[in-house]
Amino acid sequence: MMRIGIDLGGTTVKAALCREDGTLLHKMNAPTRLGDADGLRADMKALALALCEKEAITPEQVQSIGIGVPGSFDKETCTLRFGTNLDMSDVCFAQAFEPEFQCAVQLDNDANCAALGEAIAGAAKDTRNMLMITLGTGVGGGIVVDGKLYTGCNGIAGELGHIVIRQGGESCNCGRKGCLEAYTSASAFVRFAERALEAGRKSVLEENRGALNAKMICDAVDAGDTLARELFEEYCVNLSCGLANLVNIFQPECIVIGGGLAGYGEKLIEPLRRLTEAETFQGASCNARIIAAALGNDAGLIGAAML
Amino acid sequence: MMRIGIDLGGTTVKAALCREDGTLLHKMNAPTRLGDADGLRADMKALALALCEKEAITPEQVQSIGIGVPGSFDKETCTLRFGTNLDMSDVCFAQAFEPEFQCAVQLDNDANCAALGEAIAGAAKDTRNMLMITLGTGVGGGIVVDGKLYTGCNGIAGELGHIVIRQGGESCNCGRKGCLEAYTSASAFVRFAERALEAGRKSVLEENRGALNAKMICDAVDAGDTLARELFEEYCVNLSCGLANLVNIFQPECIVIGGGLAGYGEKLIEPLRRLTEAETFQGASCNARIIAAALGNDAGLIGAAML
Repeated sequence: MMRIGIDLGGTTVKAALCREDGTLLHKMNAPTRLGDADGLRADMKALALALCEKEAITPEQVQSIGIGVPGSFDKETCTLRFGTNLDMSDVCFAQAFEPEFQCAVQLDNDANCAALGEAIAGAAKDTRNMLMITLGTGVGGGIVVDGKLYTGCNGIAGELGHIVIRQGGESCNCGRKGCLEAYTSASAFVRFAERALEAGRKSVLEENRGALNAKMICDAVDAGDTLARELFEEYCVNLSCGLANLVNIFQPECIVIGGGLAGYGEKLIEPLRRLTEAETFQGASCNARIIAAALGNDAGLIGAAML
Repeated sequence: MMRIGIDLGGTTVKAALCREDGTLLHKMNAPTRLGDADGLRADMKALALALCEKEAITPEQVQSIGIGVPGSFDKETCTLRFGTNLDMSDVCFAQAFEPEFQCAVQLDNDANCAALGEAIAGAAKDTRNMLMITLGTGVGGGIVVDGKLYTGCNGIAGELGHIVIRQGGESCNCGRKGCLEAYTSASAFVRFAERALEAGRKSVLEENRGALNAKMICDAVDAGDTLARELFEEYCVNLSCGLANLVNIFQPECIVIGGGLAGYGEKLIEPLRRLTEAETFQGASCNARIIAAALGNDAGLIGAAML
């Protein structure tokens, strides 16, 4: 039997056909029709059918379809309540693949899907208890306990970016002050850089002032820029504060770091590992490993397939 | 079949005989023989035998014995590695109840046992996913996921008091700065009061300066003392910051508040509930309830029996 995973983004709808063990066989995508729920559902079904054709299987051989969505949703009714950057709300996907596909359709948020993907087929393969932190525009999180996604009593657990590490600190989009996200999202990293430039700090970053991104700051660190190095060190201290909190709570087998900033690789992971270890309770046997994500953008697709 | 739970404290060893559903039938205790491992083991067995006699059952009718311990331990070998306030280390309990009792002996930390007790037979009865926070000399924590204690990859998960809420803040016993424990243990509550008095603040608390406890501060709040009220409000803000972090991570069915300070009842719980709700993501269906512990000191005993 096969599984189909769909990653619904604000720009692209991606779909993948996977084996039961999470192996990705084929993937395809289509531009997201913003604000057009019927069009979106039709595109999703077309992608699913095209994947079956590609692998020469029938829709009956697909045992489940999972969709990773951005925004709020209701699992019971398989409905997207409010889609961030999708210009649509209250879109039900339960019957979207009928009559060709008769299998169950599952929904979960994109960060949870990424965590499940990494747990089953990625960096955290063969672990039972893991966390994933996704460093992007925001800071997403996913929790896997005993091999299954943990989503709490109302389906929205795992907001690992919204734990306050500095009470009364930076304003966060969630309304709180001092959240991990407000210090460690890629946007926060850029905001601190722009703020330092505004305060008159000299740096090679000045040439891109007003249009900085996280990659540029990492490149400036590599080029030996003093300001960029300071910002990066502060970033690592803040992120490891959050990671240490999570280790003291969960003592997971590993924490997988994903999202754009994870592309900085061991140069990011090594200091995080060192700083986090210094601030956590250590067990006699195993301790949480901090590792970079392995599946990149495919994690969400594979995780959706495995919902 | 019956279960026996033992709560090993620095002053008293308590033991209880429980039914399989967590109902406590009898309890007994003995003073803790500090620094005397053989004596401690003998006392524990004597308590277990006395409980059986009291209920007129044979040791064969006891299906498990669980011990809640303070300090670090190794579950695999049923050994207390380092006992806080017990003056002993590396004490193995695996054979402590033989030959009379042939059942398995389990070990876990006291905060975890209290959480399990409240989950099975206390304030959180009939919930599958809950957290417990114990406000005492320190801040203890326990996590129950899907009806079972969650203890992570190395048995020491659930250190809910050791999440930093104010980076670089108050020094914590664990070595970090700004932990929830450093702001919300009973000791921290007292420390802030003593500090305010030292700074010259006027208060009814002055008469007990140097010998304050949390109960006295709560009494002063009730008596309308301005300083005590300020300290209490600040305490609630700090604790609800930690609770909100935990809700955003876990979205548990409930968080049970235990320990000495929980004795302040709804006067503590109501503001915590209000402040926490304002800082958390709310689900469409259920949301975490914040409630006071129901079993008092019996929680640890019952939880140990249910390990």
